[in-house]
Amino acid sequence: MAVEVDGDFEQLQKQNGVVQPLLTDLYQITMAYAYWKGDKCNDYAVFDLFFRKNPFSGEFTVFAGLEECLKFLQNFHYSTSDIEYLRKTLPPSVEPEFFTFLSNLTAKDVVLYAVPEGTVVFPRIPLLRVEGPLPLVQLLETTILTLINYASLVATNAARYRHAAGPHIKLLEFGLRRAQGPDGGLSASKYAYIGGFDGTSNVLAGKLFNIPVSGTHAHAFIMSYSTFDESKVRRLKDSNGEEQDFVSLALKWQAELSKFLGVILEEASSGEFSAFVDYAVAFPQSFLALIDTYDVIRSGLLNFCAVAMALHDLGYKALGVRIDSGDLAYLSNVARETFHNISDKYNVPWFGELMIVASNDINEDTVISLNEQGHKINCFGIGTHLVTCQKQPALGCVYKLVEVNKLPCIKLSLDMEKVTIPGRKEAYRLYSQDGHALIDLLQRVDEPPPEPTKRVLCRHPFQESKRAYVIPSKVEKLYQLYWKDGKLCQPLPTLAEVRQKVFDSLRSVRPDIKRNLNPTPYKVSVSDDLYQFMHDLWLQNAPIGELF
Amino acid sequence: MAVEVDGDFEQLQKQNGVVQPLLTDLYQITMAYAYWKGDKCNDYAVFDLFFRKNPFSGEFTVFAGLEECLKFLQNFHYSTSDIEYLRKTLPPSVEPEFFTFLSNLTAKDVVLYAVPEGTVVFPRIPLLRVEGPLPLVQLLETTILTLINYASLVATNAARYRHAAGPHIKLLEFGLRRAQGPDGGLSASKYAYIGGFDGTSNVLAGKLFNIPVSGTHAHAFIMSYSTFDESKVRRLKDSNGEEQDFVSLALKWQAELSKFLGVILEEASSGEFSAFVDYAVAFPQSFLALIDTYDVIRSGLLNFCAVAMALHDLGYKALGVRIDSGDLAYLSNVARETFHNISDKYNVPWFGELMIVASNDINEDTVISLNEQGHKINCFGIGTHLVTCQKQPALGCVYKLVEVNKLPCIKLSLDMEKVTIPGRKEAYRLYSQDGHALIDLLQRVDEPPPEPTKRVLCRHPFQESKRAYVIPSKVEKLYQLYWKDGKLCQPLPTLAEVRQKVFDSLRSVRPDIKRNLNPTPYKVSVSDDLYQFMHDLWLQNAPIGELF
Repeated sequence: MAVEVDGDFEQLQKQNGVVQPLLTDLYQITMAYAYWKGDKCNDYAVFDLFFRKNPFSGEFTVFAGLEECLKFLQNFHYSTSDIEYLRKTLPPSVEPEFFTFLSNLTAKDVVLYAVPEGTVVFPRIPLLRVEGPLPLVQLLETTILTLINYASLVATNAARYRHAAGPHIKLLEFGLRRAQGPDGGLSASKYAYIGGFDGTSNVLAGKLFNIPVSGTHAHAFIMSYSTFDESKVRRLKDSNGEEQDFVSLALKWQAELSKFLGVILEEASSGEFSAFVDYAVAFPQSFLALIDTYDVIRSGLLNFCAVAMALHDLGYKALGVRIDSGDLAYLSNVARETFHNISDKYNVPWFGELMIVASNDINEDTVISLNEQGHKINCFGIGTHLVTCQKQPALGCVYKLVEVNKLPCIKLSLDMEKVTIPGRKEAYRLYSQDGHALIDLLQRVDEPPPEPTKRVLCRHPFQESKRAYVIPSKVEKLYQLYWKDGKLCQPLPTLAEVRQKVFDSLRSVRPDIKRNLNPTPYKVSVSDDLYQFMHDLWLQNAPIGELF
Repeated sequence: MAVEVDGDFEQLQKQNGVVQPLLTDLYQITMAYAYWKGDKCNDYAVFDLFFRKNPFSGEFTVFAGLEECLKFLQNFHYSTSDIEYLRKTLPPSVEPEFFTFLSNLTAKDVVLYAVPEGTVVFPRIPLLRVEGPLPLVQLLETTILTLINYASLVATNAARYRHAAGPHIKLLEFGLRRAQGPDGGLSASKYAYIGGFDGTSNVLAGKLFNIPVSGTHAHAFIMSYSTFDESKVRRLKDSNGEEQDFVSLALKWQAELSKFLGVILEEASSGEFSAFVDYAVAFPQSFLALIDTYDVIRSGLLNFCAVAMALHDLGYKALGVRIDSGDLAYLSNVARETFHNISDKYNVPWFGELMIVASNDINEDTVISLNEQGHKINCFGIGTHLVTCQKQPALGCVYKLVEVNKLPCIKLSLDMEKVTIPGRKEAYRLYSQDGHALIDLLQRVDEPPPEPTKRVLCRHPFQESKRAYVIPSKVEKLYQLYWKDGKLCQPLPTLAEVRQKVFDSLRSVRPDIKRNLNPTPYKVSVSDDLYQFMHDLWLQNAPIGELF
């Protein structure tokens, strides 16, 4: 785990897809130079990373991105070419010894406390407390924000879709083509999975993160066939290994079902029929067809059912259909009814249970509206709105200095919401007897922790009169030590474990806080001691004389 | 340029940051198998990549991402580990020979025509025409869309900010921390620069793409100082190399200017003063200070001017200030007036011209509103809204099959806007005598191209009665051949050349089309021949009997 520095380091970083320390804002480096030049390299600083407002008009956020931050620390090192670049980019007055300082810099003096990845978190409670020499911890800011902001945003978005869809609907992430380039797409797949999705269409994400991948065919596949005769491979082995004339069988079923379903045979697309036949021959055990290329009711459903029943004759079960346009609630009801009718008429029980996948620019509101209308969809494929987080495309995490050399720092602002809470702090989550989270509490580090069954005074951080005594049944210390002495301090959970953590953590949050529309705010508080400390400091630092 | 295949290929890809072919949707691979299994590997397909609507309620789009698509083609190859992953991910019924087919696949049979990168483009005119064996060109879809959608979106967004700000304001991209992870941030920096920004805060983008980088310090830098005595390095060499007591000099100026500016000396932050001194000592030739940590008027401006005048005494010129909160128009006017007053009083001409940088959640509407209010800002730092494209976080490029084996394909839809224009097509831009683009014209490939000074009939693609004769002064063929026989067909422009192309291409677009509010739509048209071809095909394929 110790940070190794050698000539191949840069190559190693690239190979591992690890984020490089130059992925930062230039001002971090100019600040580091000013600290170095000003002899402040040994000043000991504490930064808090937190956000001020939950995204998507919601009242919770899922914390994600920690593992990538820790990998960034493990590999933190400026390569020779980084130093060369900085040397020619910074003003010529910058002293050469600064570049020696930079090239020797590693994250070994950083101490990082964090809430475990996958925890549900709330405004103002820091997710990370980063400590160490001032220039070094300052240099980490942008990269850490980059790694956490989008990860947490998309995990939260995914959790909201999961909440809207309910636990029994399959959710698939289809957003690669609308993401912020290749890596934006990969991050989206990874963190949507953590937030509660079941899989992705993104094959590389599947390979890299071991996420289930999913997909069948596009409209282009259907459109590339134009006639009945186009299936060159007409035969398919049945489940006993005997070759059968699959095209004739499917044509027979098409004629039969067109009568049963009351669909005009001539109006069904013959190209679509051929495409379905070829797809079924390729995937007899997992046939799932896109049925809206021409017309769901007058073509796609008939052709699908004909091919699926022909598969049934050969001993195979089809998977289902995907609908990518039109009135999804209505079409899913028609499809389900059709499947049930065929199931009953031909005594094929599984036919009624075929999967119905819906896609087409679905967002959270669509899911809620479809639920209200009543639908028979089993699976949503969600792309653009999930990965771009259209409702709010950025989470505003900030990284604020709260202490230098044991002296607290406070950022004042005319906007009370923007005042920072100074000093090193611990955070606790207090639980009620029914297992639900009651309130989060920030304290100064040297205060005794709250204890179960003992009364604790929780104060609103800014409003003097808002105070409450809470008697927790359980107290959870939110921060764990993740990084010290250049080493990870505990093994990191797998992706699946983080996903489970999100699930468990969300379960501990009251339903009214999680609901998609007009949720109840969760309370975050400070101890009486911290309240006094902060407000005294505020008064000391705020100039008198401003008209209010 | 030829595609080399060897054991180190995967490593090579990673080293070059090249996008891998597994960065795609799974359905591309299942479709490829169905094509392979259905003996359609030699079917010759033509796909068009286009969008249907300009982003941001605008009437133009900047095309970007082509170079990355070409690099993707150059390196298109499934590695051994890719094949292993696919083998265990696809159903066991998939025949082993398919994986041999995949592992031998390169992009040598792809033919790619495109509009040059940086060209201003409009809805429905394909940006790319991709031809080749059906499974191969199908396999490219998602990756190419991923590479073009966000690149074009952010380049267009940047061009809109440039248009709103005017040509003389400096625009800096500050969005890394709010982008979709590391690579989202890099893409944002690159394509914002192409779209007309002057630089970025993202150091890695500067290193990789040779984009100017910019930045000074954050509020944390100021907050890390609390007293007057905190500058440990009190001395600074003047421009003649003589050491001077810089702190005393700055303190003298602070006292002097507090009287001249009517600011109460005791109310100015002493920590801020120390921070400015240390920053000026570090960067005497490029001192730019963030002046809103405590109070712009009652602290930041005074402290900045004191340190800047002390620098002046030592023979240095300061650069200016950054304001990151509050009423940016008002504060910039106050700052400019202060600078002018000092310039006049102490006869320091450059002081009146100090740069004023504004940041803080600026979007296109903010820029327009600031212009209306009147401001003295020279430079905007723009982050979140630029990189997330908050107004519209995805461009809806699609990749549609338009021809297979010389037979045209048409995607019908009840929504007329979603009908595709079938067949292989050429695109032309017709110019008026004053050099402005008049109209874009799509034709079938075998039609003679329009000629300057000759009348050409341009038809609305869908509305029969909308037709116009146009006599162009100049005709530009929009597509160039970029890739054939596994090779690039022409040298690629540098980033700076693409940026210049955006500038030139935008200049050829009429101002009313480019304006930010309620712009005039640019006209795109089809030839009479293409119109007939398309509508005949439409009638042949659309079922009769739908109630309208």
